[in-house]
Amino acid sequence: MAEFANYVPGPYAAEHIRITPTTLADGRDFFYLDDDPEYVSGAKTRELEDPRPLAYRFANQLNAAGEEVPYAAPEMRRDPLTGDWIPMATARMNRPITAGPGATATGNPLAARKPGDPYQDNEVPDTDYNVVVFENRFPSMVRVPGRSEAVDYVDGNPLWERRLAAGRCEVICFDPDENGLPADLPVRRLRTVVEAWAFRTAEISTMEGIEQIFPFENHGQEIGVSLAHPHGQVYCYPFIAPKMESELKHTEAYFERTGGNLLKDIMNAEIEAGERVVMRNHSWVAYVPAAARWPLEVHVAPVRDVLTLDQLDDQERWDLAQMYSTLLKRGNAFFDKGDGKGMDLPYIAAWHQAPIHDARREHYRLNLQFFSFRRAANKIKYLAGSESGMAAWISDTTPELIARRFHELGPIDIDD
Amino acid sequence: MAEFANYVPGPYAAEHIRITPTTLADGRDFFYLDDDPEYVSGAKTRELEDPRPLAYRFANQLNAAGEEVPYAAPEMRRDPLTGDWIPMATARMNRPITAGPGATATGNPLAARKPGDPYQDNEVPDTDYNVVVFENRFPSMVRVPGRSEAVDYVDGNPLWERRLAAGRCEVICFDPDENGLPADLPVRRLRTVVEAWAFRTAEISTMEGIEQIFPFENHGQEIGVSLAHPHGQVYCYPFIAPKMESELKHTEAYFERTGGNLLKDIMNAEIEAGERVVMRNHSWVAYVPAAARWPLEVHVAPVRDVLTLDQLDDQERWDLAQMYSTLLKRGNAFFDKGDGKGMDLPYIAAWHQAPIHDARREHYRLNLQFFSFRRAANKIKYLAGSESGMAAWISDTTPELIARRFHELGPIDIDD
Repeated sequence: MAEFANYVPGPYAAEHIRITPTTLADGRDFFYLDDDPEYVSGAKTRELEDPRPLAYRFANQLNAAGEEVPYAAPEMRRDPLTGDWIPMATARMNRPITAGPGATATGNPLAARKPGDPYQDNEVPDTDYNVVVFENRFPSMVRVPGRSEAVDYVDGNPLWERRLAAGRCEVICFDPDENGLPADLPVRRLRTVVEAWAFRTAEISTMEGIEQIFPFENHGQEIGVSLAHPHGQVYCYPFIAPKMESELKHTEAYFERTGGNLLKDIMNAEIEAGERVVMRNHSWVAYVPAAARWPLEVHVAPVRDVLTLDQLDDQERWDLAQMYSTLLKRGNAFFDKGDGKGMDLPYIAAWHQAPIHDARREHYRLNLQFFSFRRAANKIKYLAGSESGMAAWISDTTPELIARRFHELGPIDIDD
Repeated sequence: MAEFANYVPGPYAAEHIRITPTTLADGRDFFYLDDDPEYVSGAKTRELEDPRPLAYRFANQLNAAGEEVPYAAPEMRRDPLTGDWIPMATARMNRPITAGPGATATGNPLAARKPGDPYQDNEVPDTDYNVVVFENRFPSMVRVPGRSEAVDYVDGNPLWERRLAAGRCEVICFDPDENGLPADLPVRRLRTVVEAWAFRTAEISTMEGIEQIFPFENHGQEIGVSLAHPHGQVYCYPFIAPKMESELKHTEAYFERTGGNLLKDIMNAEIEAGERVVMRNHSWVAYVPAAARWPLEVHVAPVRDVLTLDQLDDQERWDLAQMYSTLLKRGNAFFDKGDGKGMDLPYIAAWHQAPIHDARREHYRLNLQFFSFRRAANKIKYLAGSESGMAAWISDTTPELIARRFHELGPIDIDD
């Protein structure tokens, strides 16, 4: 297998997951993660050449007047009123949307290439795959070779800091079946997705300028997912995101006050309280946090002290795949239209891991925050004035009611 | 006119707006703000009695087993990981929804009562009105007489602070016409809405336990507005909302560093830069902030140093009504389906005013933050993983592009 800068496969991955790197026609990084024995054994090999006639992605472009202008790299500006960096990526306006009422494209760029198909939006060079990871074609953050990353000011005014949004955006396809739901994937395939999270975390951690690696999954047209194919993303911010900054401030203050790890103590307090714990296995605990803000919210914490996804050992990765599978299945059963069949739950699964360089990282702890906007079979929670305007979340339910529904759906102990 | 604890009408309101307080059948405060000369002159008087047989709102209730239990007051819990208070109001699950796919009711509770109509969801006792303000029947925060407001802990664990969500939620109906859009109201009626904002800010400022008064307007089914009738709300938090806390931290640090007012200096910097200023009149400046995070975002700042809405003088209130009217009209013209007619824009208009007791209030400054989720005639910006999970906003446009579109729609100087 290929050698990587920082990623070292554990015993399972070394034997059962083969990672093959390649480069797309426009210069983007691309990785096959194969769990199919034929590819792992080397009996079959990957077609690595991207047949599309794509221009180098950072090449000069033509403007409306037909003149050649430099690649329009996303920039970011710091909001002086909140301190938040806001990446601005005008090129994303033209990205293809294949799901929902605003659909602008009919092909599925995440599908494997059909033999002989010249369609330029198929991102996978080969005609099949298991799991793939690649750089987003329409990134909201990207490092551009040779482009300055120095801070300057909008209109020359020091109130308005500006710099290149020199982060990284990757896409992870969970499975080649475009109609499959992540909840229905075999645990073995989800195990490969977990390996992809660990692999990318390890590798991206060594890249210059990245401060936080954020693997997440958006699922469901109701929350604006523009491609229905089962996939997740990895946003790599060149700053600490505001929510993570708030969490780091609190975990650090807690450490200074008590010497303890806040996230560990919250997990243990939830175990002690018991009522809001919804699932457990050998390596993980899932609970509805005592101050949940969403109509459906579950946090998943590792039993062992772990900072980042690449620190998980083999058993923890398997147990996570199992926990994630069960969580998604129960999420789909959570709301009932009255026919007992549940429904495809729109959700966001957000990985919070220790930042890369920030000195407070040692007092943080890996956790998954899983939540849904759905608040009933026929109702969505919208982020209106209080949430969007003041960041003040209002819940219409209680953590105990959410947990009670999970308890109806299955046992807490999900070990085999 | 009635006497109030803190509100003092200016010369215009004293002559042209009559405020009549009353109490709804369940005990909630209700106020008529009349600008109709017949009511202002006293030629006509208001029917004050609410004919509905509603129980006292804080009366004991029957649980599922038919037992009498105390009123289920909304509580709030502090998230130990972020420090945010999360109000939890289970009673809101049953509120009527008359707009959109999840509609559960057919009547319009914000309409005036029809003569002889026993419908219990009509909140206005009289058969007509101009502007009315009343306490929300399904509040996410409310003070309950006799109920302790002391902090205790969920499951007895000091990690999880909990207390009564002893705030206040009010509704402002802008006009009796349920099919009217705020953008189409006469400036004179919007002037009465401005008076309602000032009136409520003055009065609620003296109420015990309220820390921040947040008048806002949610408009459009796309953002989950459950009642289509033109109306706004006033959320009165018993805490400083997270976004306001972030802004106060930055305005205070700026004052300590420079002796200046950050919000004033931002306004002046926008005036100096010029490119993003989209409207001006004698008292107000509207600009797209240099680090705008929404696909359409405009901030409106008073020229004079003003902390809160009730500090605005008569001319400022008139100029605000005019600015608000023009802003809403241009908002509706902003996105074009190709027929040049524009569209009913979904938007949030959020008033940021100095908090009531916080010592940093003097270095803050009143401002309106107006924004929309719409990013094209057929596209909505959803708050997905990055925004909802990490509070990291990604913009697909630039402030200069937003401002350019406003410039196409009309002159910057909107004085008559």
